[in-house]
Amino acid sequence: MGAGTGISRRQALGLAGAGVAAAGVGTSYVLARDDDAHAAADAYPFHGEHQAGIVTPAQDRLYFATFDVTTRARSELVALLQRWTDAAEQLTRGELVDTGGATTLNAPAADTGEAIGLPPSGLTITFGFGPTLFRDPRDRFGLTDRQPALLQRLPHFPADNLDPRRSDGDVCIQACANDPQVAVHAIRNLSKLAFGAAALRWAELGFGRTSSTSTSQQTPRNLFGFKDGTANLKAENAADLQQHVWVAPGDDPRSGWLAGGSYLVARRIRMFIEPWDRTSLGEQQQLIGRDRAEGAPLSGGTEFTEPDFDSMGEDGKPLIDTASHVTLAHPSRNKGARLLRRGYNFADGNDDLGRLDAGLFFLAYVRDPARQYIPMQNSLSKNDGLMEYLQHTGSGIFAVPPGIEPGEYVGQRLFEA
Amino acid sequence: MGAGTGISRRQALGLAGAGVAAAGVGTSYVLARDDDAHAAADAYPFHGEHQAGIVTPAQDRLYFATFDVTTRARSELVALLQRWTDAAEQLTRGELVDTGGATTLNAPAADTGEAIGLPPSGLTITFGFGPTLFRDPRDRFGLTDRQPALLQRLPHFPADNLDPRRSDGDVCIQACANDPQVAVHAIRNLSKLAFGAAALRWAELGFGRTSSTSTSQQTPRNLFGFKDGTANLKAENAADLQQHVWVAPGDDPRSGWLAGGSYLVARRIRMFIEPWDRTSLGEQQQLIGRDRAEGAPLSGGTEFTEPDFDSMGEDGKPLIDTASHVTLAHPSRNKGARLLRRGYNFADGNDDLGRLDAGLFFLAYVRDPARQYIPMQNSLSKNDGLMEYLQHTGSGIFAVPPGIEPGEYVGQRLFEA
Repeated sequence: MGAGTGISRRQALGLAGAGVAAAGVGTSYVLARDDDAHAAADAYPFHGEHQAGIVTPAQDRLYFATFDVTTRARSELVALLQRWTDAAEQLTRGELVDTGGATTLNAPAADTGEAIGLPPSGLTITFGFGPTLFRDPRDRFGLTDRQPALLQRLPHFPADNLDPRRSDGDVCIQACANDPQVAVHAIRNLSKLAFGAAALRWAELGFGRTSSTSTSQQTPRNLFGFKDGTANLKAENAADLQQHVWVAPGDDPRSGWLAGGSYLVARRIRMFIEPWDRTSLGEQQQLIGRDRAEGAPLSGGTEFTEPDFDSMGEDGKPLIDTASHVTLAHPSRNKGARLLRRGYNFADGNDDLGRLDAGLFFLAYVRDPARQYIPMQNSLSKNDGLMEYLQHTGSGIFAVPPGIEPGEYVGQRLFEA
Repeated sequence: MGAGTGISRRQALGLAGAGVAAAGVGTSYVLARDDDAHAAADAYPFHGEHQAGIVTPAQDRLYFATFDVTTRARSELVALLQRWTDAAEQLTRGELVDTGGATTLNAPAADTGEAIGLPPSGLTITFGFGPTLFRDPRDRFGLTDRQPALLQRLPHFPADNLDPRRSDGDVCIQACANDPQVAVHAIRNLSKLAFGAAALRWAELGFGRTSSTSTSQQTPRNLFGFKDGTANLKAENAADLQQHVWVAPGDDPRSGWLAGGSYLVARRIRMFIEPWDRTSLGEQQQLIGRDRAEGAPLSGGTEFTEPDFDSMGEDGKPLIDTASHVTLAHPSRNKGARLLRRGYNFADGNDDLGRLDAGLFFLAYVRDPARQYIPMQNSLSKNDGLMEYLQHTGSGIFAVPPGIEPGEYVGQRLFEA
């Protein structure tokens, strides 16, 4: 289905109403097609060289889910990806999900309805494949010889306390939007379309972005109260993206299908905010290596000033502690490794001790997780003073295929190239 | 502290930055006072005849929490309410929490920081007192003789499946805002201020409003995909509010302190959306009694047309089913009872069966829960066909004291009148 030919949620609202009088006596009603100018205003194209939702300026809200594929038939997996592709095209345009055929009162509606009347809201839907899709159990879909060498379950890091019910998955779907109702609606409808072929494994709501992926955005704050991701990769620097985010054609000879894609590392990081809140501001700033108010490195300057790790205080000690987060995570301490971060704050109620179950849902896109994420996380989990105040409780890694052209389905190059 | 004399979060951002150079060498820094025009634009007054957050046009996001009071000393409970009042005044003005004294690096910051730079965002903070505050265990605070006769734990309703970890509480705090970061920040800081006197009992994040409380708002949709609360009470109709929401001075002779307040009923309603989504549109509409697209009653008309329960279809049956939700909840079937609804959609991940743990966090303000809520809920839980698709998993009732004047603390009339 081409752009702009579907049923816009705003149009549906007005025109379906005209069918209501008939609805009471059981007549089916047909919705008109979309020519709504609103729809285009805050819609990102689903098609392109790369999937949307990676370098797209980070939207404010997230709903993230992973799925276990339950069918054993490769053809049914492909059919699922085709259904998901069609629906994702519609959803990102702000249309009702349309699986073909007229809407009648005698059948379930194709679309679950809670986004009727809402604009596209900057929705992006980004798909990724977990390592288990390729080989667990064994080679169920004939994909093992195409598994990227780098797509391996992340190793156990010191202090990990992973909940298997919040980890892994055969497929992940990241829905980002500026309206959470639109993001939740997207995941729910994709889950509905998966019925019989895949089942929801876990889901996480991110209520506020903690990263900027564009120079047009201000740096937001995480639940430690500090600006997060000041040094993030930005969409405007194509050379950085080529070097650090996009898989290049020659990166993995047996996984050419992934060229133009990326790897997504997802980590649910619980923050112990009650003890953090009882830590002095000076200690917090030393642990981070930046001041809280503006996010400037403790060596001086403003937010975007490069930290000077050699700058000494009057007491002869470095102004930026050698075990601070900004030091340990800095490219200069990680062989030049950088990440495209796209994380969100979460708040999932509280635990049995009355502490808020809140923290950072860390999402990062990298070209090479073995070089860009694993060494840094090993270093952080061993040495970062912040580890006293956080715990990784969920984990996943996914190969994110490149974008598609109209007529293709997500992941088609994995199955057919 | 009077309005506009505190430290605005936007001012803090700019001016604290000027103190950063000194921060590295351990000097304390002082923040300037607020004269930020932004602050007033989307701020609701904390003071007034009634608490804000009841008839205030429903903001988009919610964070709701209840607390168990852990101190046994009445004076410490009063001191907590005083701290909460001061902080709520500051937070709703978009200021940093300020507990007095200079901010130094050698002590924890008074404010947790994650809302620095954010405007007031329409934040309202609304406090209520649960029945246990007055007598459990026994008369711990000398309040039993002031417990409102109507403030009683809700009875068990058919099909209730309440989780005690998501029910009850001595005090509730409802934080509503148009930015969830601002709502979460408010609850977190009030929880921090409670340390040693009260402990968080449970918390719920509502990602999208499901009610309008003003004629200026469009009716939103719940996760069944239908418009919710079309017939809600609205702020613009003062006579309705007097009759159905605000406790009048003569309502309860021993609880004069509650005059101008209200009762809050909170119910966490899990929706089983997977089976709902497999139900035909016609069946859904019959269960609700309205059409999905526009929200018009099945007897015809548009959203705000009164349902006509006597209108018959060609088959001789009522167009609106006698067991439909709109019928069972209609004032004509409930001795004229009406509610001020203020609910939110929630999505708390998933359960162990891979179903989304999502639904409606129902909040309603009433003058008399025994007359306005309990009979209706008994009727709904026995007869409403929707009950097949939902389950009440959390519950609380709270007496919401009236608004206060500057210089008063929340609930003062309970303790001192």
